[in-house]
Amino acid sequence: MRVTTIHGPGDIRLEDRPTPTIDKPTDAVIKVVAGCICGSDLWPYRGENPITPGETIGHEMIGVVEEAGSEVRSFKPGDFVIVPFCHSDNTCPACANGMQSACVNGGLTTGGQGEYAKVTQAEGSMVKTDGMPDPSLFASLLTLSDVMATGWHAAVAANVRPGSTAVVVGDGAVGLCGVLAAKQLGAERVIAMSRHEPRQEIARQFGATDIIAERGREGIEKVKELTNGVGADAVLECVGTGEAMRTAFRVARAGSMVGFVGVPHGVELPVRHMFSANVGLAGGIAPVRKYLPELLDLVTSGTINPGIVFDSRLPLADVAEGYKAMDERRSIKVYLEP
Amino acid sequence: MRVTTIHGPGDIRLEDRPTPTIDKPTDAVIKVVAGCICGSDLWPYRGENPITPGETIGHEMIGVVEEAGSEVRSFKPGDFVIVPFCHSDNTCPACANGMQSACVNGGLTTGGQGEYAKVTQAEGSMVKTDGMPDPSLFASLLTLSDVMATGWHAAVAANVRPGSTAVVVGDGAVGLCGVLAAKQLGAERVIAMSRHEPRQEIARQFGATDIIAERGREGIEKVKELTNGVGADAVLECVGTGEAMRTAFRVARAGSMVGFVGVPHGVELPVRHMFSANVGLAGGIAPVRKYLPELLDLVTSGTINPGIVFDSRLPLADVAEGYKAMDERRSIKVYLEP
Repeated sequence: MRVTTIHGPGDIRLEDRPTPTIDKPTDAVIKVVAGCICGSDLWPYRGENPITPGETIGHEMIGVVEEAGSEVRSFKPGDFVIVPFCHSDNTCPACANGMQSACVNGGLTTGGQGEYAKVTQAEGSMVKTDGMPDPSLFASLLTLSDVMATGWHAAVAANVRPGSTAVVVGDGAVGLCGVLAAKQLGAERVIAMSRHEPRQEIARQFGATDIIAERGREGIEKVKELTNGVGADAVLECVGTGEAMRTAFRVARAGSMVGFVGVPHGVELPVRHMFSANVGLAGGIAPVRKYLPELLDLVTSGTINPGIVFDSRLPLADVAEGYKAMDERRSIKVYLEP
Repeated sequence: MRVTTIHGPGDIRLEDRPTPTIDKPTDAVIKVVAGCICGSDLWPYRGENPITPGETIGHEMIGVVEEAGSEVRSFKPGDFVIVPFCHSDNTCPACANGMQSACVNGGLTTGGQGEYAKVTQAEGSMVKTDGMPDPSLFASLLTLSDVMATGWHAAVAANVRPGSTAVVVGDGAVGLCGVLAAKQLGAERVIAMSRHEPRQEIARQFGATDIIAERGREGIEKVKELTNGVGADAVLECVGTGEAMRTAFRVARAGSMVGFVGVPHGVELPVRHMFSANVGLAGGIAPVRKYLPELLDLVTSGTINPGIVFDSRLPLADVAEGYKAMDERRSIKVYLEP
């Protein structure tokens, strides 16, 4: 089967590899219907994360069960499933506490940009749809594998409340989904920090009431102006860089929370400021499985349509071009069809 | 009047200074009934914080209103009051959001270890008792000025829930009050980390179900043993050192919160661990005024008796000895009578 591999910075290849097999009774093999490229895939692509040359890449997918192990009792071949990027048994203490991303038996999808991929802990990880969904829903369903659930986690961690003012730092697919999540959770005002017109447009469609194109100190000043000098009730940090985190803390009002979901790179937390202003930080790797049933309902009922974050569709054969387009910010998020 | 001053590391003096006066209509002057020495007073005493030689010190007190400015409408001379160490107008946006410690018109008590002290924003800061309280309640009422409210804030920030397991790092007066707070907020199991027998005894009286005397890696292992390897549902960090913070994060289960109230000194936050384990951090300078009415009810009803953290009573004249006793950990907390 064909699957995407990374051999070094900027070096993405589609290669032939053995089709995954059931090695443990908790495994399932999925025929991928659609995968995609994540903002976090750009870290190794840009040489910011270490890699093993030739390793497979891609952690988001929707697909059809090809084969399931003997302990995967709720699924059978042919079921259409959404696969959280982080696998979980959904029974261990971490899962029982709603933090499936810290499952003691957890794992990650590693071949989502391919024709077939393995899910470990398939029983506790996957969620199936009610029959084969209409292809018009595929894009939105695919976002539930990671970015929409991750944006949702940012909003939950930031403690977004009805009537509140939320700021979203980051206009990647996760940040845009964070706008949608904050709106769904009742924020009255959602301020999206974005300087790219196509992203601003999606942010508006997702419910952003204000757009701030400025960055750094000027961006912070703009948020202060919009909030009568007070700052926001909830801040979603959806990038993971030091600058994004600094902005997040500076626009958060005293007593509020920053919810962070961008994988931190070069981030130093301002502990003195956090202490004096009582601005907390929560979040991390999203427990996708926890939110998935609720988000699936929102998608299938047509309440939310997060799939519009995909502004590019490519055949799997063009995956290298997809990475290039996202790296150069020509594309927000690339949908891949095997 | 006599008031405590600090002239350098280890150099505490009781000196004559002019009695405070009403300078603004929001001021009140309080005749101090009792003050005390705070663990945070030991930072400048030990030379860890910069000082201006000769400045007054002491931020906790209960007392009687001596004189009140024209805008201090709810209080009159003779009223017995508890004075939060951080003053607040109780009307600004920060106060309205329940974070009175970040009041835009805030200030701090600076002469609480003296005969008289000024409260700025007296109307929004002070809470009075229903008549003159019985002297047997003075010690507990004095803790509401800071340590009990601060321990409470740690428990609230750590999100202590009924039935949960809480760990308290730090056995100073704040940590002990944190034990009491966690118990009051419904924790079923409260694990106090303390190696000093007299402090362990108070922790038990406050509701600690388990005591861990070990520190560092051994202490962390003990918590893990007590929690079936999972870690605690809520952790109160009541010290402010790097080691205490490291311990707090290592004993917190995935998806939990660390509530921190120790003034951070040399603390670096483990952002990667926070991200991967979804352990959040919240807290800071306690909004004493927010919690004061509820805590006052708990004290006057006899539900809690935090005053037992005072294991030493000294006349104000012996304040220097009080600092020495606390610095050498011969005393948990010193009560001072002018």
